[in-house]
Amino acid sequence: MLRLTYVLAGAARRDAEANARFIAREQSVEVPEGTAPDVEARLVGRVERIEPAAPHTWRAVIAYEPELVGGDVTQLFNLLFGNVSLMPGVRVVDVEFPDTLLARLPGPRFGIAGLRDACGASTRPLFCTAAKPVGLDVAVLADQCYRFARAGADIVKDDHNVADQPPARFVERVRRCQEAVARANVETGGRTLYFPHVSGPLSELTARLDTVERAGCRGVLVNLLPQGVDAARTIGARGLMVLAHPTMSGVFFAADHGVAPDVLLGTLFRVAGADGVIYVNAGGRFTTWTLEQCQAINRRLRAPLGPVRPACPVPGGGVDADRVPYWVEQYGADTMFLIGASLLRQPDVEAATRRVVETLRRYGA
Amino acid sequence: MLRLTYVLAGAARRDAEANARFIAREQSVEVPEGTAPDVEARLVGRVERIEPAAPHTWRAVIAYEPELVGGDVTQLFNLLFGNVSLMPGVRVVDVEFPDTLLARLPGPRFGIAGLRDACGASTRPLFCTAAKPVGLDVAVLADQCYRFARAGADIVKDDHNVADQPPARFVERVRRCQEAVARANVETGGRTLYFPHVSGPLSELTARLDTVERAGCRGVLVNLLPQGVDAARTIGARGLMVLAHPTMSGVFFAADHGVAPDVLLGTLFRVAGADGVIYVNAGGRFTTWTLEQCQAINRRLRAPLGPVRPACPVPGGGVDADRVPYWVEQYGADTMFLIGASLLRQPDVEAATRRVVETLRRYGA
Repeated sequence: MLRLTYVLAGAARRDAEANARFIAREQSVEVPEGTAPDVEARLVGRVERIEPAAPHTWRAVIAYEPELVGGDVTQLFNLLFGNVSLMPGVRVVDVEFPDTLLARLPGPRFGIAGLRDACGASTRPLFCTAAKPVGLDVAVLADQCYRFARAGADIVKDDHNVADQPPARFVERVRRCQEAVARANVETGGRTLYFPHVSGPLSELTARLDTVERAGCRGVLVNLLPQGVDAARTIGARGLMVLAHPTMSGVFFAADHGVAPDVLLGTLFRVAGADGVIYVNAGGRFTTWTLEQCQAINRRLRAPLGPVRPACPVPGGGVDADRVPYWVEQYGADTMFLIGASLLRQPDVEAATRRVVETLRRYGA
Repeated sequence: MLRLTYVLAGAARRDAEANARFIAREQSVEVPEGTAPDVEARLVGRVERIEPAAPHTWRAVIAYEPELVGGDVTQLFNLLFGNVSLMPGVRVVDVEFPDTLLARLPGPRFGIAGLRDACGASTRPLFCTAAKPVGLDVAVLADQCYRFARAGADIVKDDHNVADQPPARFVERVRRCQEAVARANVETGGRTLYFPHVSGPLSELTARLDTVERAGCRGVLVNLLPQGVDAARTIGARGLMVLAHPTMSGVFFAADHGVAPDVLLGTLFRVAGADGVIYVNAGGRFTTWTLEQCQAINRRLRAPLGPVRPACPVPGGGVDADRVPYWVEQYGADTMFLIGASLLRQPDVEAATRRVVETLRRYGA
């Protein structure tokens, strides 16, 4: 069974029980009792447990038949927080998958081990940076990529705001940024990877991935929520690595509504097929995230999960280059640090990047 | 300029001003001041106005260069509520597009007039119903479609939970449900349309739309948020009508965070290309929606908006067949009523459906 744990607002146990029964029906068959008795007997979610949680909240466990999902990630999100999103006071705080369902969902094709292999870094923390901002000419972005690669960053990604706008249209950008990184690799003997941001019309996704492959890129950045939660499957099926950006995810993170950040970014993005998941680091420029929250995401990304490979935590959004040792201490080596803007502000971007590279190499075996 | 109006939480004006400036930078170039001065001067959002709103909140208007969006709906959502979703106390309550940007976004291919034309109903309110629940055999679903069509419903759609699960796999379901509706139309001289639910892997979207077209369907149901906000463009470009389902949209609707329901479902789903937008009706089984909220969505779906066709409001989610006259009174004739479960509970589904059809025909010219 697919088991979801909810926190439900409500003073009295009988309200919580009624809400749980409503959710169990709504998120499965979505018809009133008696409409299709045979199907209802088989498929209506089962409320397995209700217990008091914090004051005025209840913890409810509902078990759903995995066949409600089939193999679609879209339908998984629909079951997890589809219509129920329109009810107040409902928050998903845990999810437990049967292995049979996990086997039908994409999961990371590469995961931590695959990223390490591609970067030629078997034990040390990984390092990702970003060419930005939107609005720069493609030649300037390519030059940033070149400098980052010269300095030995593991992955240089596009900024998640850079889509197909002039003056850095997608096709030319991919070609020139990848060329710049490849040139630096030849010069240094390095293995830096360039991950372009793939977005835009779904009908053009295949063509864009063709462009990415032809250029010789090994992976891409994707804004998983606006792009569509099944996008990572399509990218992974092409043999490309998936770095998932958390843009728009904050809509899920109300205190008493939505899906807990560690469940969404840690478990769901992982089963959806992300090899690396970017999230906003504690102490970054979005100040509401705690260290504990980030560690909970890390745990879910790396924990054993049936046949699903571990995915790599990618804390970013204001990670300061000087504080890298502190964060390695907190998060351990199976982490990719995303450090972008603080490097671009330095007078010598290449030297600043190299200092981070050297810091992280000290943590290698 | 693309103008967004935000409501920002905060006691003091200077906090609201600082937040607005932070958002204007984060949602445009996303780099610290001085990183790329030329680009910043041109592309950082401009805070045009800040004024007190409700106690402890401020209304801020920020203008963004349309070139930040390009023509991607994904990037539009990213700018509108991407990284900013991770900040507390930020809510988008209005959006104003320049016509140049609207011309690059999909918008409805058909809209209200196109739906009316396809249904052969020039003035009366339209009527949509749904074959359900998930778990029924394809033969039973096809039989429901047949009965609904016999009775003269305008559109019979799949339930939004019905994806590609056995025992009603997508390809066979589309073929048999469409065949059932076509057969009823031949018998009655009617023009009922069958809209299958299209979901699943993005890489299979084209193949699924091929199936839909080959079967002779005129449109589809899509779960726009999990499927990907640019999905409606791809469907519309095929000449198929788009009925957008609001599943997962509730994550945007916190009182002090997210995007106002009328902006998301009324304006954004419309510019994304939905011809009809389903929303949860006031007084339905999700009880928190007010009549005023629903009317605000209707207004945004139908209001003049540059070159963008009006889209059709589709209130559903517990609309009771007996109360249809009341809702027509409230919402007017340019509305499609979605009545599903309350018909399926009736001993004679066809007769119950016919009563709704007859009620709505009384509102024709």
